[in-house]
Amino acid sequence: MVLHNSPNLVYLTGVNIKTFERPMFLVSNGEEHVLVAPKLDKEKLHRFEASGGKVVVYEDGADIEKLLASLAGSLGIESGKVGFDETVSLRVYRMLCRAIGEIRLVGITDDLLRRRYVKRKDEIENIRRAVNILDEVYRKIEASLEPGLTEAMLSSLIVNWGMELGADEVFFSAVQAGENSAIPHHERSARKIRRGDVVVIDISLTYNNYFGDLTRVFVLGPVDSKLRENYSVVKKAVEEAFSNVKPSRKASFIDDVARNYLSKHGLASFFIHRLGHGLGVEVHEPPYLSPTSNDVLADGNVFTIEPGLYFPGRYGLRLERNVAILGGEPVYLDSYDVDIVEN
Amino acid sequence: MVLHNSPNLVYLTGVNIKTFERPMFLVSNGEEHVLVAPKLDKEKLHRFEASGGKVVVYEDGADIEKLLASLAGSLGIESGKVGFDETVSLRVYRMLCRAIGEIRLVGITDDLLRRRYVKRKDEIENIRRAVNILDEVYRKIEASLEPGLTEAMLSSLIVNWGMELGADEVFFSAVQAGENSAIPHHERSARKIRRGDVVVIDISLTYNNYFGDLTRVFVLGPVDSKLRENYSVVKKAVEEAFSNVKPSRKASFIDDVARNYLSKHGLASFFIHRLGHGLGVEVHEPPYLSPTSNDVLADGNVFTIEPGLYFPGRYGLRLERNVAILGGEPVYLDSYDVDIVEN
Repeated sequence: MVLHNSPNLVYLTGVNIKTFERPMFLVSNGEEHVLVAPKLDKEKLHRFEASGGKVVVYEDGADIEKLLASLAGSLGIESGKVGFDETVSLRVYRMLCRAIGEIRLVGITDDLLRRRYVKRKDEIENIRRAVNILDEVYRKIEASLEPGLTEAMLSSLIVNWGMELGADEVFFSAVQAGENSAIPHHERSARKIRRGDVVVIDISLTYNNYFGDLTRVFVLGPVDSKLRENYSVVKKAVEEAFSNVKPSRKASFIDDVARNYLSKHGLASFFIHRLGHGLGVEVHEPPYLSPTSNDVLADGNVFTIEPGLYFPGRYGLRLERNVAILGGEPVYLDSYDVDIVEN
Repeated sequence: MVLHNSPNLVYLTGVNIKTFERPMFLVSNGEEHVLVAPKLDKEKLHRFEASGGKVVVYEDGADIEKLLASLAGSLGIESGKVGFDETVSLRVYRMLCRAIGEIRLVGITDDLLRRRYVKRKDEIENIRRAVNILDEVYRKIEASLEPGLTEAMLSSLIVNWGMELGADEVFFSAVQAGENSAIPHHERSARKIRRGDVVVIDISLTYNNYFGDLTRVFVLGPVDSKLRENYSVVKKAVEEAFSNVKPSRKASFIDDVARNYLSKHGLASFFIHRLGHGLGVEVHEPPYLSPTSNDVLADGNVFTIEPGLYFPGRYGLRLERNVAILGGEPVYLDSYDVDIVEN
């Protein structure tokens, strides 16, 4: 197996570092696990070495192709099939073809995703810890949100709170005020938060490499009755979806349930994305809860349920909760207030 | 041409959005430029549309392969060669092969990099604005750095200052205190900054999609004479390298100059990375100033010069400046203090 730096490598090794354009590979014959890494990242690999892994570093300008070929030889994998991850870039794939031989390379991405699909107990525990940190971060937001703060400042405070509370890294910290809340995935800007704003806050962070991902809605000042009504439909859509979660159900069915509920209230056309996505070493991974998903739910799945409504130029609403299937039943991992938080 | 979401797409369209696992493509016949994008990112594409581009959105679960094939047809590119960017993932490449036909696809990554290699005036102006923002951010750091701040808190403040000063996004905000400064690319942790710490701060941010990237060293309290001596060698290495920059010189020669200077002072073995990298729509792009680089410097190049010394478990030092070649001469774009900043 020769894996490039990717979520699959994080999953198998626990090593989670940005090496930018310098490649990093895991080369393994099943018994020996060798990381080929840039020399300047050596200091970050002590834990991998301590757990029995081997590290081979290279300096800028080294011939990585040759290094991989000779390493494959010394690990006794100079013949037979070699697994690789098809999320690799075409350029690196071509390099692997030269180093290993194209016909020997076998894509193992689907196998790895299948292994990742059902979480072990320790993986769910990591996600639960990430979600606990998020719950705490939302309490801090509630105590600090006030007019005059910029989206960017609050986003920065969130990153800091997450880190102080024990996150490895805060991956996404979106603060969307007023009309910006109608733009899904808007992250932050220098716009000041004003009285009367709807503020949608979407945060994902990792604990021990595993993601939690929550969204809540805050309103500064009195909540308009139409907005409250729309939000209550979103919240009820989450509950409807949640109560239908069961092993062996199609993930698309859960999306249908939520979408139909919004539709009954004339709001489905404002729900422009899928209902949810799996959580693990990636923030978006199977199961995908979407109309066209082929995923089938299983015990050990962890995913988001996050219907949203978007009124361009006006405001958006989204409630995002994190759910695990444990012992055949859905369980919410998050506990922070699921109503509109009025400040 | 069919380009996936990548720095090359940013370069050609100005569109710089994260679409995560949802693909985005630019399809162009040279006259019409169409972005195929996820529906939920539509709101972010108004500027592209206003400048004459066309946007085709798809919903989750759509058949992108079919969409691309039919779009290629309607743009009149159902025959002949179609350029694509080889930084694409193997999976997306295979999808392009099915949609367009493998033998029609021609890699144009090198052509695009060649165009990006020599910056136009407006590109250099964007980089200069990014660097000006960085200079300002360092002034704010100088005014705020004090014991008790965590690396993460200072890193968050930096992100906020960058955004408030007009950056599109702060891409990297590394605050490395004490022993962490010996770990290149360490970004931040909950470690408190203490009196006596060396604090290495490396920030890259964009203005209008173009990167500036600076590093400075702060010391809280009196500076040890050995550290001061080492730093002065680093600083002098920057000057030596800079004064040798000239069009038609090999980039590797500039790396040699700095490395030899450190070597003369017995410090070359602590300099474990290349001397510098180009700046543009990517934070690392050609020209690369490294021992094995084949790049040849040219008027219009913009790059970093950033020698560093790393003493594992103790401390690290790096000075990173941004340089443009204008009218045959090197010019520093940054102006913030290049000495150790004592707080």
